[in-house]
Amino acid sequence: MTVNEALQKIASFENTNAAINHASGILYYDGDTVAPEGSVEVRALTLGELSRMSYELITAPELIEALETLNANLSSLSDIDQRKVSELYREYDRTRKIPVQEMVDFNMHIAESGAVWHKAKENNDYASFEPYLQKTFDTLKRFASYTDPGKDPYEVCLDQYERGLTKERCDAFFSALREKLVPLIARVGKALQIDDSPLKAYYPKAQQEKFTEHLVDIMDIDRKHFTVGETEHPFTISFTGKDVRITTHYFEDNLASSLYSVVHECGHALYDMNSMPELFRTSLEGGVSMAIHESQSRFYENIIGRSRAFCSLILPFLKEEFPEQLSSVNEDSFYKMINRSEPSLIRTEADELTYALHVMVRYELEKKMMSGEITAKELPSEWNRLYKEYLGVDVPDDKNGVLQDSHWSGGSVGYFPSYALGSAYGAQMLKEMKKDIDVDAVISSGKLTEINAWLKEKIWQFGCLYDPSELFKRVCGEFDPDCFVEYLENKFTEVYSL
Amino acid sequence: MTVNEALQKIASFENTNAAINHASGILYYDGDTVAPEGSVEVRALTLGELSRMSYELITAPELIEALETLNANLSSLSDIDQRKVSELYREYDRTRKIPVQEMVDFNMHIAESGAVWHKAKENNDYASFEPYLQKTFDTLKRFASYTDPGKDPYEVCLDQYERGLTKERCDAFFSALREKLVPLIARVGKALQIDDSPLKAYYPKAQQEKFTEHLVDIMDIDRKHFTVGETEHPFTISFTGKDVRITTHYFEDNLASSLYSVVHECGHALYDMNSMPELFRTSLEGGVSMAIHESQSRFYENIIGRSRAFCSLILPFLKEEFPEQLSSVNEDSFYKMINRSEPSLIRTEADELTYALHVMVRYELEKKMMSGEITAKELPSEWNRLYKEYLGVDVPDDKNGVLQDSHWSGGSVGYFPSYALGSAYGAQMLKEMKKDIDVDAVISSGKLTEINAWLKEKIWQFGCLYDPSELFKRVCGEFDPDCFVEYLENKFTEVYSL
Repeated sequence: MTVNEALQKIASFENTNAAINHASGILYYDGDTVAPEGSVEVRALTLGELSRMSYELITAPELIEALETLNANLSSLSDIDQRKVSELYREYDRTRKIPVQEMVDFNMHIAESGAVWHKAKENNDYASFEPYLQKTFDTLKRFASYTDPGKDPYEVCLDQYERGLTKERCDAFFSALREKLVPLIARVGKALQIDDSPLKAYYPKAQQEKFTEHLVDIMDIDRKHFTVGETEHPFTISFTGKDVRITTHYFEDNLASSLYSVVHECGHALYDMNSMPELFRTSLEGGVSMAIHESQSRFYENIIGRSRAFCSLILPFLKEEFPEQLSSVNEDSFYKMINRSEPSLIRTEADELTYALHVMVRYELEKKMMSGEITAKELPSEWNRLYKEYLGVDVPDDKNGVLQDSHWSGGSVGYFPSYALGSAYGAQMLKEMKKDIDVDAVISSGKLTEINAWLKEKIWQFGCLYDPSELFKRVCGEFDPDCFVEYLENKFTEVYSL
Repeated sequence: MTVNEALQKIASFENTNAAINHASGILYYDGDTVAPEGSVEVRALTLGELSRMSYELITAPELIEALETLNANLSSLSDIDQRKVSELYREYDRTRKIPVQEMVDFNMHIAESGAVWHKAKENNDYASFEPYLQKTFDTLKRFASYTDPGKDPYEVCLDQYERGLTKERCDAFFSALREKLVPLIARVGKALQIDDSPLKAYYPKAQQEKFTEHLVDIMDIDRKHFTVGETEHPFTISFTGKDVRITTHYFEDNLASSLYSVVHECGHALYDMNSMPELFRTSLEGGVSMAIHESQSRFYENIIGRSRAFCSLILPFLKEEFPEQLSSVNEDSFYKMINRSEPSLIRTEADELTYALHVMVRYELEKKMMSGEITAKELPSEWNRLYKEYLGVDVPDDKNGVLQDSHWSGGSVGYFPSYALGSAYGAQMLKEMKKDIDVDAVISSGKLTEINAWLKEKIWQFGCLYDPSELFKRVCGEFDPDCFVEYLENKFTEVYSL
C-alpha cells in the first residue's frame, strides 16, 4: 500500500466513521428529546448494531494496513495527518482488545440504562436503576482489564476523559482545593447571608425562552448551525461544527437555573463549532478532552456569566421581561444573589465556591465503585454520607441525591473530575486572557465576540491536534490550582465583604 | 453454505439493514423537525454514506450466496422466510444494476433537495428549486434505464409504490373516475352552497393540540410507541412498529386542516404499528405499498373521519373547546361544512369529491416529465394549465401550485396515484367491513377499536407478506372503481340534496 493509498483509506474510514457517529448521536439526541417512551428497545438494538459497525470499521485489516504504512512514513505527512494516524492507531489498539459482542452488548445496555435512569429519577426509585448501574461499573472494570491489564481500572476511565489524568493527580488537586476552600466556605457561612428569594419567584417558561434567545445573541453564536432543545438534564451534542445542539431545562420557580445552564452549554457549543476547517468531519474535530471542554463551559458560566459586568449586562433585559419579580433588585444586589454561596444538594445548581465539593463526592464514589470497595446497592447511603461530610447537608431522597446526574446512566465514569479541573483551568485562562484584552469591557459591550475570538485562536481551532495537557501548557504554562483558589478568594471576599 | 447458515446470514443482514434504515429515517425526521438550518450539508454527507453502506450490504457476496442457497431450498422454508428471500433477492437485483456512487450521489442530492424545496416554498421561489427537481427526474429516468432497460421509466416508478401498476391501469382508472366525477362535481357546483366560514375562524394552536390528543384517544393509538410532531408538510415515519411518528401543521385560521391531517396520518401509523410480531424489525415489517397505505390513511380521514357519525362524535368536544367559534353550528351543519366540496388549489385541503382531480394533475405531469415531454422549467405553467382544465381554478403563485407538495423534493415520483387508488380501495374495504361490523355504531361508541381490529386482522398484521394486489383481493375480491364512484355519489347526493 502506498502512502497515498493509505491516506485515501484513512479518508474513507473517516467518512464512514463520521456517518456512524452522526447517526448514533442523532439517535441519542432524539431519544432524549422527542422519541416515544416505548422506543427504547428498538433504539438500543440499532445503537448496538451501529457500535458493531464502528468496531468492525476501526479494526478492519485494510485500515490497520493503512495506519501501519503511514506510521512507517510519518515524517512525510502533514501535522494533521500525523496526529490522525497516532490517534486512530491508539483507538484501534484499545478497541481490538475488547471482544466485539461485549462492546455491542454494552452499547445496548447503555441505551436502556439511560431510559431506566430517566424513569427512576422521575419516580425517585433507585432500586430499579441499581442493577443497570452495577452492570455499567462491572463492564467498565472488565473493559479496563482487557485494554490495560494491570492498570488501575479507574485510572483507565480517567484517562478517557483527560488523557494522562491519574488518581494521584486528582487526589493532590482535590486535597489542595479542599484544604483552601473549606475554611473559605466556613467564613462565607458566618457572613451576612444574601437573600436571593427574588430569583425564586414565578418565571413563566415562555419568557425564559425569550431570554435564552437573548443569551445566544450575547454569546454571538451562529444560529444557522445551533439549536436549543429541552431535556431533563441539559447537555450539548455536536454533529460536526455545522450542527451543534444544546439543551436546557426550564424551572418556573428558578430564574438562574436555565440561565446558567444555557451559558454553560453555549460554552461547549462554541468550542465544538470552531475547529479549523481542515478538521471538518474528521476524528480530530471538536473538543480534545472533557476537562478542556468543561474549562470552556464553566469559564462562560462562572467567570464570565457570574461576573459583575455580565450581571449588569443582562439585568435590564430581565427587568423588562420580569418587572414585578425583580422590582426590588438592583445591579449590586442582583450580582450578589447570582453569587450567593451555600452548601446544597444539586451539583448543577451549585454556586462556584462549593461546586468542587460536589465533584469530590462523585470522585470518591467512582473510586470506591471501581475498586469494588462498595457496590451499587451501597451507593445511595455512601452518597448521603459524603454529602453530609463534605457539604454538611442532609440528602432527603435519591432524586435529589444519587439519581440527580445523568453521567453514570450514560456510561460516563471518570468524567466528573473534568468539571473541577476545568474550573481551575478556566481561572488560569482568564489570567492569560486579561493580558490581551479588557474582558469586562468586552462583556459590557453586549457581545462576547472578542472573548470568543481569543479562545478560538488559543484553543478551539486546534480541535484534537494536541493532547489536553500540551494544549493547556501552550496557553497558560504550568497548571497551578492556587490560581483558581485565589480567584475564588478574591471574588467571595468581595461578594460577602469578608 | 447450509440452509441454517444462510438463514443466520439473512438475520444478520436484517439486523444491520434495520439499523441503517432506522438511522437514516431518524436523520430525515430530525432534519424536518428540529435540526438547525445550516445542518443540511453534513446531514447529506451522512445520508449519502449510509446509503453506500446499505448498497454494500444488499450486494455483499455472502448475502447473495445465502439468498441463492435459500432459493434452492425454498420448500423447506417457512412462508415468512420464503417471502423474505424473494423480496430481498428482488431488492438485490434492482440495486446491483445501479452504480454505487450514483446511488450515493442521489441520496445526497435528495437530502439537499428537501431543504431547498422548504426554502423555495417559503419564499415562493420555484427557480431555486427547479435544477434540483430536474436532476431528480433525470436521475430516476437513468436509474430506470439501468434496472429495467426497455421498460417505460415512469412505469418503473409506479411499480415502486404499487407493484404491478402500469400507465394503462392508471389511465383506465383515472379516465373512468373523471368521466363519472366531473358531472357529479358540476351538479354539486350548481347546488345550494354550504357556508363553512365558522371552520375558518380563529382556532388557537394550543387548543388544536389538545384536540389532537383527543383524536389520538378516539383512534385508540398506543401512545407509548407514538408521537405527534410539527412540520411544514405532515407525514408519518416509522422505525418499526414500536416507534411511529406522525406530524401535522396547525393553521390557526383553519380547524379542519390539522384535524383531518392527524386522522389521515394516524391511519398510516396504525398500519405501521400492527405487523405481526414475527415481522418485527425485518424487511417485511410495515405497509406493503403506498396504495394500500393510502387506502388506510384515507379510509380513516374520509370514510370514517368525514362520516356523519364521526362528525357527531367530535362536535361536542370541539364546542366545549371553541364555544364562540362554533356557536352557530349543529350536528347537521357541521357534517355538511366538513364535507363542503369545491374545486380548490391545495391537494391536502381538498374535499373527498374533487381530491382525485388533484392527483390526476400530478399523474399527468409526472408522465410528461418522465417521458421528457416537458422539463422542470415548464412544470409550473403546465401545472397551472392543468389546474385550470381539471379543476377550473387559477393558480395565483407556485407556493399554492407546483411547490405545495413535498413528494418530488424527496425523490418520490410515481407516488401520487397511490392516493386516488387508495381512496378507491377504501370504499371497497368499507363495503366488506360492513358485512362484519356496524361501522357507525363503533364510531358512535367513541373508540375505533373494533374498526382497527378488523383492519388488523385483514390487512395490517401481514406487513409485506403479500403483494398489494393479492392482499387486496384476499380482502375485497376484484378491484372495482365503480364502488368508489357509487360511494361518492351516495354521499354527495345526500350532503348537497341533489
